[in-house]
Amino acid sequence: MPDIDALWAEFARPIATAEDYIASLRGRRMNVFFMGERVPEPVDHPVIFPSINAMAETYRLASEQPELGGVHTPIANVRTNRFLHVPTAPAELVAKHEMQRELGRRTGTCFQRCVGLDAIGACHSVTFDIDAEKGTDYHTRFLAFLKRAQTANIVIGGAMTDPKGDRSKPPHQQADPDLFLRIVKRDANGIWISGAKMHQTGAVNSHWLIVMPTMRMTEADRDWSFVGALRVDSPGLTYVVGRQTNDTRAVDGGALDAGNAQFAGQEAMIVFDNVFIPHAHVFMDGEWPYAATLVERFTTYHRSSYVCKTGLGDVLIGAAAEAASHNGVESVSHIKDKLVEMTHLNETIYSSCMAAAYRSKPLASGAYLNDEMLSNVAKHNVTRFPFEIARLAQDIAGGLVVTMPSEKDLQNNEIGPLIRKFLQGKSGVDTVDRMRVLRLIENMTIGRNAVGYLTESLHGAGSPQAQRIQIARGMGVEDKKARARKLASVETRGRAGG
Amino acid sequence: MPDIDALWAEFARPIATAEDYIASLRGRRMNVFFMGERVPEPVDHPVIFPSINAMAETYRLASEQPELGGVHTPIANVRTNRFLHVPTAPAELVAKHEMQRELGRRTGTCFQRCVGLDAIGACHSVTFDIDAEKGTDYHTRFLAFLKRAQTANIVIGGAMTDPKGDRSKPPHQQADPDLFLRIVKRDANGIWISGAKMHQTGAVNSHWLIVMPTMRMTEADRDWSFVGALRVDSPGLTYVVGRQTNDTRAVDGGALDAGNAQFAGQEAMIVFDNVFIPHAHVFMDGEWPYAATLVERFTTYHRSSYVCKTGLGDVLIGAAAEAASHNGVESVSHIKDKLVEMTHLNETIYSSCMAAAYRSKPLASGAYLNDEMLSNVAKHNVTRFPFEIARLAQDIAGGLVVTMPSEKDLQNNEIGPLIRKFLQGKSGVDTVDRMRVLRLIENMTIGRNAVGYLTESLHGAGSPQAQRIQIARGMGVEDKKARARKLASVETRGRAGG
Amino acid sequence: MPDIDALWAEFARPIATAEDYIASLRGRRMNVFFMGERVPEPVDHPVIFPSINAMAETYRLASEQPELGGVHTPIANVRTNRFLHVPTAPAELVAKHEMQRELGRRTGTCFQRCVGLDAIGACHSVTFDIDAEKGTDYHTRFLAFLKRAQTANIVIGGAMTDPKGDRSKPPHQQADPDLFLRIVKRDANGIWISGAKMHQTGAVNSHWLIVMPTMRMTEADRDWSFVGALRVDSPGLTYVVGRQTNDTRAVDGGALDAGNAQFAGQEAMIVFDNVFIPHAHVFMDGEWPYAATLVERFTTYHRSSYVCKTGLGDVLIGAAAEAASHNGVESVSHIKDKLVEMTHLNETIYSSCMAAAYRSKPLASGAYLNDEMLSNVAKHNVTRFPFEIARLAQDIAGGLVVTMPSEKDLQNNEIGPLIRKFLQGKSGVDTVDRMRVLRLIENMTIGRNAVGYLTESLHGAGSPQAQRIQIARGMGVEDKKARARKLASVETRGRAGG
Amino acid sequence: MPDIDALWAEFARPIATAEDYIASLRGRRMNVFFMGERVPEPVDHPVIFPSINAMAETYRLASEQPELGGVHTPIANVRTNRFLHVPTAPAELVAKHEMQRELGRRTGTCFQRCVGLDAIGACHSVTFDIDAEKGTDYHTRFLAFLKRAQTANIVIGGAMTDPKGDRSKPPHQQADPDLFLRIVKRDANGIWISGAKMHQTGAVNSHWLIVMPTMRMTEADRDWSFVGALRVDSPGLTYVVGRQTNDTRAVDGGALDAGNAQFAGQEAMIVFDNVFIPHAHVFMDGEWPYAATLVERFTTYHRSSYVCKTGLGDVLIGAAAEAASHNGVESVSHIKDKLVEMTHLNETIYSSCMAAAYRSKPLASGAYLNDEMLSNVAKHNVTRFPFEIARLAQDIAGGLVVTMPSEKDLQNNEIGPLIRKFLQGKSGVDTVDRMRVLRLIENMTIGRNAVGYLTESLHGAGSPQAQRIQIARGMGVEDKKARARKLASVETRGRAGG
Repeated sequence: MPDIDALWAEFARPIATAEDYIASLRGRRMNVFFMGERVPEPVDHPVIFPSINAMAETYRLASEQPELGGVHTPIANVRTNRFLHVPTAPAELVAKHEMQRELGRRTGTCFQRCVGLDAIGACHSVTFDIDAEKGTDYHTRFLAFLKRAQTANIVIGGAMTDPKGDRSKPPHQQADPDLFLRIVKRDANGIWISGAKMHQTGAVNSHWLIVMPTMRMTEADRDWSFVGALRVDSPGLTYVVGRQTNDTRAVDGGALDAGNAQFAGQEAMIVFDNVFIPHAHVFMDGEWPYAATLVERFTTYHRSSYVCKTGLGDVLIGAAAEAASHNGVESVSHIKDKLVEMTHLNETIYSSCMAAAYRSKPLASGAYLNDEMLSNVAKHNVTRFPFEIARLAQDIAGGLVVTMPSEKDLQNNEIGPLIRKFLQGKSGVDTVDRMRVLRLIENMTIGRNAVGYLTESLHGAGSPQAQRIQIARGMGVEDKKARARKLASVETRGRAGG
Repeated sequence: MPDIDALWAEFARPIATAEDYIASLRGRRMNVFFMGERVPEPVDHPVIFPSINAMAETYRLASEQPELGGVHTPIANVRTNRFLHVPTAPAELVAKHEMQRELGRRTGTCFQRCVGLDAIGACHSVTFDIDAEKGTDYHTRFLAFLKRAQTANIVIGGAMTDPKGDRSKPPHQQADPDLFLRIVKRDANGIWISGAKMHQTGAVNSHWLIVMPTMRMTEADRDWSFVGALRVDSPGLTYVVGRQTNDTRAVDGGALDAGNAQFAGQEAMIVFDNVFIPHAHVFMDGEWPYAATLVERFTTYHRSSYVCKTGLGDVLIGAAAEAASHNGVESVSHIKDKLVEMTHLNETIYSSCMAAAYRSKPLASGAYLNDEMLSNVAKHNVTRFPFEIARLAQDIAGGLVVTMPSEKDLQNNEIGPLIRKFLQGKSGVDTVDRMRVLRLIENMTIGRNAVGYLTESLHGAGSPQAQRIQIARGMGVEDKKARARKLASVETRGRAGG
Repeated sequence: MPDIDALWAEFARPIATAEDYIASLRGRRMNVFFMGERVPEPVDHPVIFPSINAMAETYRLASEQPELGGVHTPIANVRTNRFLHVPTAPAELVAKHEMQRELGRRTGTCFQRCVGLDAIGACHSVTFDIDAEKGTDYHTRFLAFLKRAQTANIVIGGAMTDPKGDRSKPPHQQADPDLFLRIVKRDANGIWISGAKMHQTGAVNSHWLIVMPTMRMTEADRDWSFVGALRVDSPGLTYVVGRQTNDTRAVDGGALDAGNAQFAGQEAMIVFDNVFIPHAHVFMDGEWPYAATLVERFTTYHRSSYVCKTGLGDVLIGAAAEAASHNGVESVSHIKDKLVEMTHLNETIYSSCMAAAYRSKPLASGAYLNDEMLSNVAKHNVTRFPFEIARLAQDIAGGLVVTMPSEKDLQNNEIGPLIRKFLQGKSGVDTVDRMRVLRLIENMTIGRNAVGYLTESLHGAGSPQAQRIQIARGMGVEDKKARARKLASVETRGRAGG
Repeated sequence: MPDIDALWAEFARPIATAEDYIASLRGRRMNVFFMGERVPEPVDHPVIFPSINAMAETYRLASEQPELGGVHTPIANVRTNRFLHVPTAPAELVAKHEMQRELGRRTGTCFQRCVGLDAIGACHSVTFDIDAEKGTDYHTRFLAFLKRAQTANIVIGGAMTDPKGDRSKPPHQQADPDLFLRIVKRDANGIWISGAKMHQTGAVNSHWLIVMPTMRMTEADRDWSFVGALRVDSPGLTYVVGRQTNDTRAVDGGALDAGNAQFAGQEAMIVFDNVFIPHAHVFMDGEWPYAATLVERFTTYHRSSYVCKTGLGDVLIGAAAEAASHNGVESVSHIKDKLVEMTHLNETIYSSCMAAAYRSKPLASGAYLNDEMLSNVAKHNVTRFPFEIARLAQDIAGGLVVTMPSEKDLQNNEIGPLIRKFLQGKSGVDTVDRMRVLRLIENMTIGRNAVGYLTESLHGAGSPQAQRIQIARGMGVEDKKARARKLASVETRGRAGG
């Protein structure tokens, strides 16, 4: 029998602060690679650390604003981080989204903890539903797991996206069965899994991972239809941290060129080589019809979680306004008008996400789930508006955003003074401050955090077409047609369908 | 002393049904003009009746879905129509918006009752605030008035927009002082007012009107700074019902050409010639600083009320889908994609309005007011998306929308059969039904109800620029700049504003 | 043998002026219906006359600006109207487009003569190509026909769009074979045709029609694969003029309410009942593979012809600027900015159309054809930008556009003075002039000429999806992929397609 | 007397090939800095070389397609590179734009040579005009200079944008007079200039520079109102090459991570410290009223030169199509539709630029200048559409664009095979090729060449607002208003301006 307690032994002392969290990541034995080299200690890696620091902000917020960042959870009967809480009322989803916006504002990047949170939410109700139908005990296992996690106040990552190979084929028809993460062996103790998960947000910065199927499964895909939780340092795991735009600015210049030196996101590929999960941490095994349910609930939660991008939008609007101020043009009408447009788009996203939270509905397990239509609408707006906000930010900031000399040039005795002389803006503005703000705009629109603000806004929680499919499903076209027929005085007798 | 009871005598029996309502409009002595002619009985005027019928739908809904269309009001301690209720909790604003969308779906047009509702909301809190500061008794008067109105279950219209003349000048500087509605005389009994109000929604279909200032006033504008309620058939009032696109289709053809023969909107110019209002119905008189407050609260309520357009959007999406079905192309990918886009835009509007309701805040009077930023964002989306939805509807429907023969052609023995032969669509679709649906699309995109769906969506509750000004005010740019500076590591000491 | 000369006898005296043209329409025996009634003399019908007057403007322009509106044609060796000229150099297509924009500016509507012009262009080269391959004499016949038409300086209409019935089936599989216009009989003298053509622009205002297939044909569709020319008053023809938004404003009020009282467009359904065409006027009979060629060439010409809408755009921009001036807000920054945006969109359309003309290529017949890709791009922009221009025009104009009293109200002794008093704008602006400009904006954005400016911009010359299909065909994706592979250093050996 | 021949001595042998060009850059004594370090030989600097290689492509094209890349110039009576040619007919501007698109396709980046070309064009006519009015000999000097340059077939850069300091003040009011490049001394031999020019495209890769004023000047700005040509290695010049997104990928990984390893753009800050220009190379000195003319002509040329971005668009469309093919989804309808949309937008830009060339007009000097309105419209579209094209490219490509492991990971023995296994796409697609194409998309949308494709598209040749100002000036609003009044039947007598 696997010793579950042993797996949790080192989490006995709950993580209380951001510093605790960072300390908790040290000394783990993980196979982490970045740019072709093994990373012995990610905390000490200058490119990776900003992503850890962004994650740490979720703890810092809970310390500084306990009501926003933390919550009492009835499951473990403790106060825990809100990122470990299953929402059981609309107000809790609202609070979650407010927390996410605030963290976006604080970090200007992806703080990486929403996938795990939304995985928890989805697993809570799906395990409940499976048990209700099948008489299994997944929900019990899940609650036990979650209780430990909440008590320990750890970071749980969520791992969903499989490599998928030939996208026209289900898992069991792939030439290489590993292209979807799968169970390669089962025994009395647990399951062994192999395969990979792609672009996993904050994977290296987590303590535990929940692995989940990525799409609808068929009966022949039983071995690919499972959910489980495992420590990120489980034997058999390998992480390859993806390259990001301008990632090496963290090392090749000073803090200035990075634009946002403190915070960044992280995505990694995770390879699973015969990794063991004891039954206690398996929350679904072979119940293939629930794969679709799980994915739909997860994405419904997660699409609204993109409210975080409005926090990034706040920063970018502020940066554009600051840059305009440095140029002495903040009160010019077209500048003001662009700031208003940016705000309008940003708040439109916000309103869609918030409406999806307020209109959440209870599931059988007692968990509340965002309104599905509005959550899809919200995310769909996220796939569009940040791009326009970013374009407007660059419009206001001017071309210097992409032609500016480096911090090292500034430090050079010969040319540093020339840069200070010629890059001065409005009287009274410190030239280096001006450069810092422009670098932040670069960072968010065409630099490291544009990865999160733009591309991830397109593809995270499902690409645009995925939302369109869901919107099509939920749009109630037959009811709408009936309304139109009624107003058009169309007779409804004998109608042959539609 | 004016006999207030006498003014209310004929409303002694509460209006219970749509039929009651229509009956209540008969026999009133009002100076109503349309196309150069006096309209002795608007209820019998074929162009005006559809607008009455749309208003009547607010009663029909209350009969058919009492929880949605009606509400218990503590002010009068009766059940009354929700359009007479002051919202005192977010859930009530949410219910209001759900009612508005449903009425949009039922009528496919402007049902005209929101201005009065939002006027009630705004007056409730502003009279309370004036009394608190000035020791006046406006709030008491207002509650007495509202109690009678709620008990009688009548329609209250709101009258706000003045002619304005030279827009660069305040009322007291206009060459003609009547270009803003004003008090021309005061005495112990009440006030006498003269001037006009422009494009007043549903004015002729109301029982009482509340007149309010249209913008910020200055001290010299005291005589233009007042609020009062008066019967629509008060002596001295003249109504000129505005022309609408295709209004005469109600008379020049059969029901088919009208597209939506049952329902339409209504806007009228109201001229006031020395009209008397007793003090009991005066809710503000000269307190000019509150004019701006009143306008802001009214528009904050009213901009979210444009959620009704999502109900019209539902109808138009349905009509487009039905037309596609008639053409046998409903499953073609670009058609489906356009229906999804229409839905996405429609639901984006919805989410903005609903978020503004859920995030409403209480005022001193106990009334709840929609979130100001989100309400402006919602309305601003309304100034854009219906135009795109309408364009897509026409795209799907095809050119026949604007080239189709008339119903009279259909009835002609010679050409009627030719039209039936050549306008047939997919097998099994009745040709005349096909025409009806296309006429409905015409009605909503380039016909009579496009007035409400498109142009009114631009200008009602304030033109686009009005929202941009409010968004600029509420956007918190200094806070956003501070966030950006922090992430850009800009030193904040000694900052000179900026 | 049919007497061809007899068919042309009454055109012996060339039409020289707009007045000649209007006179030429009188006294013809045509079966024309409008709103269920036979129209004995369309010239005298107040709803139809504005469309005749718009067509007449093509003659007026040729009188006033002979270089723009007229041209020497080598075919007939006469000066003729440019609408009868086959372009044989890029400069001639450029001049054509300049003429079209100018006519758009002069009329603010569809002047209806481009379909015939583009039919001439397409027939010129296609008949040439058929003859070259098949040894037929269609091109000779066509030139003989065109020579007579150019000499007589008449209006030729083009008739293309069939009713189409079930859109998933070709002509020969339709339940009713008449749903595509077809040859029902052939003999030594000519052909007899039956069926209908839908929404034919300016049909009633033409002298002759060219009928053409509407889409790609198959071998079994030989009887539907023909081109011919016939007089609009040929026996067996019936016209049903379609209803347009606000069409009856031409009769129910004075000139003011019409907005643009002088000019309007016209679309009619034409029913063909066993109509005879002598061989001399048959330009294709059964050569089904050329149907697609004909349609493609026609649409390539015709999509660029939508440059006319930039002339309407000029009028609408001017009207919006004038309305802003009446309100005293023309120099307000957001107003100016909207006028710039409208202009930018309008000129973008213009540039696409003009580029398509300048980049025209010669066909075997010597005729020049617009660049296909750019012509599709141009039209595709036309399906979008006028809608945004119209929205901005309404934004600038204000809500009065749809709530204004009628001209009859203005004439009423009681309320007329009130309207004049209260609708006054900036000092010095005549109130009725202000109303006229607002009615023009109504006319073009939600009134009679919005039919042409908006809906026809969507569907004329092919709906948006038709352009997308052509763009997809012409986009050269394989070449683009090769370019990308080269820059990405992708090896190209052994590539299996792509 | 300065020895002009000596300045040209080393250019005696014309540059014939790309290799000649690259060789010609070696061994020059220039003060070039990048990231805080002096660059002794830019040709050997791995970050700078791709920008040199892109410039070299202008020579390579002239070798491979002499008609497109080269031209006979009457000024020097030699065949020279088209980038040195003053266009004297619309067809030459058309050919110029075709060359620019082709170079965009070949390089996928900014090839940096258009500023100099457009400076030549503007100087040609402005010097002619000054001489005509003032009796100076600038045009003669300019032609002599240009003749040498054309004969030598060298690269001329253009330097326009000054630092500008406080943007609300003209040069002579700046606290630091150097914030606009200025003449600090004049004598019998020439002028001495000091100051700086910002973000100068391809500066380090040029042989000579033409310096020009950046905006309208006043009489007090005489010393800032000059034009001159100088060698890039003139004493007193310092270059600071700006940082670009992902610039160090050229050194920190292999070729794969760079996305486009061969080609990149370049922008540098140039500092002038008392740099001498002999009179023979001074083309304007103090004629301040011509500064505005020069800037307007330059920007009119240069805004159309942004047609190059359609070449980049071709590459990006191709890359997206290739990525879709790798994923096996190229025939999915929403993918095809997005490729069509990208093409439509790209060709819309193209058509605007080409129309501006075809509609060019001759200036007094005989040079042809693009149509001003259309050139501004073209550039304004460039400030919008590439952003949407880039968004759609990322949409099609998927999230892997920003989460992919590095080339060094691929080369690592442990994880390289895992990456190859899990990143495989459709059967038969080489995984590394798939990665290459995704890196190219990253490069153009959020990487090094996004600098040129996106940000430079916003700000190069003037920011969006600059085009709006020009569009406003050229829109002919009074004529448009007159057109509207005529159609609205507004009397024109006694109109007071309007």
